[in-house]
Amino acid sequence: MVKRVAVILSGCGVYDGTEVHEASAVLVHLSRAGAKVQMFAPTADQMHVVNHSEGKPTTEKRNILQESARIARGDVTDLAKIDFAAFDAAIIPGGFGVAKNLCDWAVKGKEFTIQPQVEKLIKTFHEAGKPLGLCCISPVLAAKALPGCELTVGQDKECERWPHAQTAATMKEMGCKYVNKDVGEVNVDVKNKLVTTSAFMCNALFHEVYDGIGVMVTEVLKMA
Amino acid sequence: MVKRVAVILSGCGVYDGTEVHEASAVLVHLSRAGAKVQMFAPTADQMHVVNHSEGKPTTEKRNILQESARIARGDVTDLAKIDFAAFDAAIIPGGFGVAKNLCDWAVKGKEFTIQPQVEKLIKTFHEAGKPLGLCCISPVLAAKALPGCELTVGQDKECERWPHAQTAATMKEMGCKYVNKDVGEVNVDVKNKLVTTSAFMCNALFHEVYDGIGVMVTEVLKMA
Repeated sequence: MVKRVAVILSGCGVYDGTEVHEASAVLVHLSRAGAKVQMFAPTADQMHVVNHSEGKPTTEKRNILQESARIARGDVTDLAKIDFAAFDAAIIPGGFGVAKNLCDWAVKGKEFTIQPQVEKLIKTFHEAGKPLGLCCISPVLAAKALPGCELTVGQDKECERWPHAQTAATMKEMGCKYVNKDVGEVNVDVKNKLVTTSAFMCNALFHEVYDGIGVMVTEVLKMA
Repeated sequence: MVKRVAVILSGCGVYDGTEVHEASAVLVHLSRAGAKVQMFAPTADQMHVVNHSEGKPTTEKRNILQESARIARGDVTDLAKIDFAAFDAAIIPGGFGVAKNLCDWAVKGKEFTIQPQVEKLIKTFHEAGKPLGLCCISPVLAAKALPGCELTVGQDKECERWPHAQTAATMKEMGCKYVNKDVGEVNVDVKNKLVTTSAFMCNALFHEVYDGIGVMVTEVLKMA
């Protein structure tokens, strides 16, 4: 049986959208496993646009779906139109777009809320017993939507550094069971069918991130 | 000896910049091989900006370097500042940015000219006996800068379809020795130290493109 996987994007670029190498690794590993993939993104404006060469916000406006289409090679669907029943699993790659466009963690910290379509996706998949794969900063979505879940964003000590200061600590405050993992490892919360891995959350090399995401994809597909 | 590789970007997104998955594959394979990588891009405006979800040009202006920084996670240098002596090899991933921002092939076809910094890079590396790795549409740069070189952009029959119509045929008209290769293969022009592979030039799956680029990286590093 071919596994059908929804991949949720949040723009294109680590500082205001989806981290492109995490998305690419997800797509390569899903492709190799023979999964049937469809990409989705919300159609709203991004929270903001960052000049990635200077690390500073600009006055531009960009649309999350349109920018996500750069990663999707044009083939991305409005998240509002997703048919949850048509998928066996969902994966959300990281990047600040998750914390800025799929929720407002970047602005509000622990008191953040999740974009309604994304929240509905997570809860619907969870209730249906379908696995979720989240990497980098994406596990914050599960920390909020699935109270008490078990997850990782890497080594909590390393993640105290900017720009990921206190992410692990805040997850613990939110009642999650936090597990320390290295970049090549994942945490599998069997009860919640939740697979998490740190990817670029802590300092890591491109191939280490690629390999860690490979383990995440394998574990997600096993449970799908 | 650690191999030092310059990776040249042309924006971020298949239709107006660097194809992100090709760039990502190049970076993952170079990382795994222990190469020292520095990314470069010109600082000019892109030829145009394409709404990737609709496949249509917009009225926006974007800078090649700033958009390339989305792939480079901020760490990309103005191509005008490259010190050729500091590198053992160069790799140029594909995407329409190559045909629009690094040369004007997309507009002029066979009579195109190469952006001067890119042309200088190719000729300087070639004269110094340093290998070049080009994938997808990037081999057109070598077709112009290294007359008579041997290269591939995939299977010439498949590449007659839009958007790559007649690329192989035009390369032959330009005097190149064209070699048919599948996505997982590369062509090595030993005399010119030129390694080419089709990547997304013909229809291919994400993992096939990733693997073909892996072979390209391996062959480039062997000659570096």
